[in-house]
Amino acid sequence: MSSPRKVSDSTVRRLSSYLRILRDIQSDGTHTVSSERLAELGGLTSAQVRKDLSFFGNFGVRGRGYDVGDLRTALTGILGLDRTWKTVVVGAGRLGSALISYPEFPNQGFAIVGVFDVDPSKLGRRIGDCEIRPVQELRDYAERESISVGIIATPRVAAQEAADHLVAGGIRAILNFAPMALDVPPGVTVRHVNLAIELEGLSFAITESSNVPTTIETGDAD
Amino acid sequence: MSSPRKVSDSTVRRLSSYLRILRDIQSDGTHTVSSERLAELGGLTSAQVRKDLSFFGNFGVRGRGYDVGDLRTALTGILGLDRTWKTVVVGAGRLGSALISYPEFPNQGFAIVGVFDVDPSKLGRRIGDCEIRPVQELRDYAERESISVGIIATPRVAAQEAADHLVAGGIRAILNFAPMALDVPPGVTVRHVNLAIELEGLSFAITESSNVPTTIETGDAD
Repeated sequence: MSSPRKVSDSTVRRLSSYLRILRDIQSDGTHTVSSERLAELGGLTSAQVRKDLSFFGNFGVRGRGYDVGDLRTALTGILGLDRTWKTVVVGAGRLGSALISYPEFPNQGFAIVGVFDVDPSKLGRRIGDCEIRPVQELRDYAERESISVGIIATPRVAAQEAADHLVAGGIRAILNFAPMALDVPPGVTVRHVNLAIELEGLSFAITESSNVPTTIETGDAD
Repeated sequence: MSSPRKVSDSTVRRLSSYLRILRDIQSDGTHTVSSERLAELGGLTSAQVRKDLSFFGNFGVRGRGYDVGDLRTALTGILGLDRTWKTVVVGAGRLGSALISYPEFPNQGFAIVGVFDVDPSKLGRRIGDCEIRPVQELRDYAERESISVGIIATPRVAAQEAADHLVAGGIRAILNFAPMALDVPPGVTVRHVNLAIELEGLSFAITESSNVPTTIETGDAD
């Protein structure tokens, strides 16, 4: 507990998972929850749950568990979900258009305020409340409007250029749907939604089950 | 190395990653690659790379590394990417429509042959080559057409019912975009694309960097 260090990605994912569980049980009318119950619902050990939550404050009441409402409010604040982040989408194709209408973004505080594309034939058209603007204006727009988050929904070949514009415009968080790794400076967080990897996982699972039984083992603990 | 066991999810993800790297370096004209170079490009240790690949056969040539073409072919086969999987989409809204047009699906061997929705006003309309059919026909269709994969792109409330129809129709692999866990029997593989978790990770990162420095630490090794 001495030297501060960065919270790991997997811890943040577990915090997300706790928050989702708390929402569900609160809507069922549950007011307190034990670390054992949270662990069971999240597929974790209760020691892990107590450890994760203890880093962020003292939420538990001994012998009684956690207050669901208090813990939910605390996690919402820790995850920054009580704020609104101004967000732009780069790429106004089918995927970009679907994302702009995706209700999870505003629900989570990501307000999409601008859409950018390279295709001159799309410029000036509207998707939802946003007019499609040329990608050349992205940097200035992001700077002027203090945009926090960029969503890249371009084809692979345009993704790095989109990232460069976003970074130049001062954006520190990118959600990348393009099937490639982005080169960004330290201090910029990229989350990659890689459908190809999910598809390959599915393909592997059904290949394996339709073959003769394999005798493969792995050395992984997971 | 004695008793066979299931290949872990993280091993499969690393195989996907190796395959992506091999494609990239092959298109640059590289013919052989060392485990050290693969490790460097994938952000892993060379011991991990050698261990992963040794489970699936003896691809390496001592002192020379792996033949890029041979290893690529082998991984493509292991991941089942040399086959075509008949795939249906449930949910013909914006997300479903975007997915039907997403080039990564056919590129990875997932041929979308059917689209289903509950909304009577959508029935009979076409998306791409597919006519939108009523979800009540899903089970029989999946059985008759030997569908391997189902993609759920419905709202949260309709997702479990969609999964039930898919499972009843004999489908063993589901890609779930709905923001909820699905209840499926053993032997059915579900991959969950959870944008909410990615969004919360981004939100956490920018909250953390815009606050006063935190003194949080985690107990994780990752």
